[in-house]
Amino acid sequence: MTDIVKSREVQNLLDRAAGLGESGGDPRLKAITRDLLEALVTIIEKHEIDENEFWAALRFLQDGVNEYGLIAPGLGIEHFLDLHMDARDAEAGLTGGTPRTIEGPLYVAGAPLVEGDLARTNDVNLTTDPDDTETLTMSGRVIGPEGEPVKDAILHVWHANSKGFYSHFDPTGAQSPFNNRRRIRLGPDGRYAFRSKMPRGYSVPPGGATERLMHALGRHGDRPAHVHFFIEAPGYRTLTTQINFGDDPRAHDDFAFGTREGLLPMPDRSGGNPDIAFDFQLQRARGERDEGLSNRARAAA
Amino acid sequence: MTDIVKSREVQNLLDRAAGLGESGGDPRLKAITRDLLEALVTIIEKHEIDENEFWAALRFLQDGVNEYGLIAPGLGIEHFLDLHMDARDAEAGLTGGTPRTIEGPLYVAGAPLVEGDLARTNDVNLTTDPDDTETLTMSGRVIGPEGEPVKDAILHVWHANSKGFYSHFDPTGAQSPFNNRRRIRLGPDGRYAFRSKMPRGYSVPPGGATERLMHALGRHGDRPAHVHFFIEAPGYRTLTTQINFGDDPRAHDDFAFGTREGLLPMPDRSGGNPDIAFDFQLQRARGERDEGLSNRARAAA
Repeated sequence: MTDIVKSREVQNLLDRAAGLGESGGDPRLKAITRDLLEALVTIIEKHEIDENEFWAALRFLQDGVNEYGLIAPGLGIEHFLDLHMDARDAEAGLTGGTPRTIEGPLYVAGAPLVEGDLARTNDVNLTTDPDDTETLTMSGRVIGPEGEPVKDAILHVWHANSKGFYSHFDPTGAQSPFNNRRRIRLGPDGRYAFRSKMPRGYSVPPGGATERLMHALGRHGDRPAHVHFFIEAPGYRTLTTQINFGDDPRAHDDFAFGTREGLLPMPDRSGGNPDIAFDFQLQRARGERDEGLSNRARAAA
Repeated sequence: MTDIVKSREVQNLLDRAAGLGESGGDPRLKAITRDLLEALVTIIEKHEIDENEFWAALRFLQDGVNEYGLIAPGLGIEHFLDLHMDARDAEAGLTGGTPRTIEGPLYVAGAPLVEGDLARTNDVNLTTDPDDTETLTMSGRVIGPEGEPVKDAILHVWHANSKGFYSHFDPTGAQSPFNNRRRIRLGPDGRYAFRSKMPRGYSVPPGGATERLMHALGRHGDRPAHVHFFIEAPGYRTLTTQINFGDDPRAHDDFAFGTREGLLPMPDRSGGNPDIAFDFQLQRARGERDEGLSNRARAAA
């Protein structure tokens, strides 16, 4: 086979395409673009990808643009970013605390801010969940590296309903805008407790780009039940994480690779409904930037 | 630096993400996906790309989805595909004839089918071009590998107007739907001739994703003047190509890398207007598939 990627003509093309010979522009973007282009054309050559396949792939990406937030975790890239950040943190001596895991694309900014000993996070007057839906109670503490209570934390919680749908993204239109979404303001003792309806795992939208890709790879597009969290507090590093349920048979078969050791509490069902006891341990912030969220695009309502 | 890409954990993640352990799915897609994922995470690791940069890149791709047809040639990928197909052709002993070059994203199916000794390809009653716009005349023959006339060819021609805009995609709305777009039916002698208004080179849409990317790479988003062609004929391989103008100072500075040797005819201006003499030489088709166009998505009107 004639390999052309390393030819002078193609190397020159890639240099020009990445703007290497131009004085202006962003040197870091140029270097990354140059590497991405060489990787892409190397794969085109290796697999002898023809123009029909290339344009079909581009068309897939165009048609699926609204699902990139699902495709990225579905292909393991979002989980890789977590592993990558863990490794960078470890190099910087920053270890310990509750593991981070993927945010996913379904956070909505602006949820009601609530307080109290036992916050309700679902909209109690809503009847979209069947009567026999379990009540989920979750409680514990937010602590720092030495086990100290974290003061004045905000715990953002969001999860699906009993049908696997998130408010704001529910195709049935049945949910109120912030059902199963709250920001809970904690006090000086770092204790939290909230009560909600037990979520179900969800599947990617039927017939959408993510599902078509997963099926073409021989995979499914299902997630086990889970609850998402951001936890922010002055002086601490914001944590993005989620929990699964230790007794969920699908907990280790998440299409989005969000399940991690340390994030699998076992519910106590002795009272008839699942009770989760879980402490979140934060790292100390090294600077203001650690106290913020990543700058990914998020919905707002 | 701790490299994690080659770790068992990440290799296992990429295997699972590409569906390698699953019995279903498309083996070719799995193999390509596996290579793409490893290439991507290797670049994330090498450049220590953080989550903010990753999500900004994904957002760029989402916002720019309508311009992938410009970004692909702008990054040299469409030209690479031509070089790649040339190399595969050469392996198969298929050489000679007029070089292929990029199609670009601006073809529109359904243009008027015309005949005659000197076809008009612009809409002559349209007054969007200033009075002093040059008249372009182009003529020559469509021949086969032994120089024989190609019978019953259809020559598709499309180009910008004097302001650099294509009909159907003209933001000013000034052009009729198929201005500067025709399918010309040729006879048994393979001779063609058409007359139109001289096109100008164009720039990518101001403020769009392609322009922003080009500027971030220190590059421009301009093309020299050019005329696009498909040529199809029974028994011959369909040719996708375009010509530039040999006296255009920007002919070798095309942001889309479409200029090629053999596609730079010098206009004869002795009559006051540019006359181009150019013969197209086709390869013989090896089968029905060679007689068709690539399956990329195209506009229709």
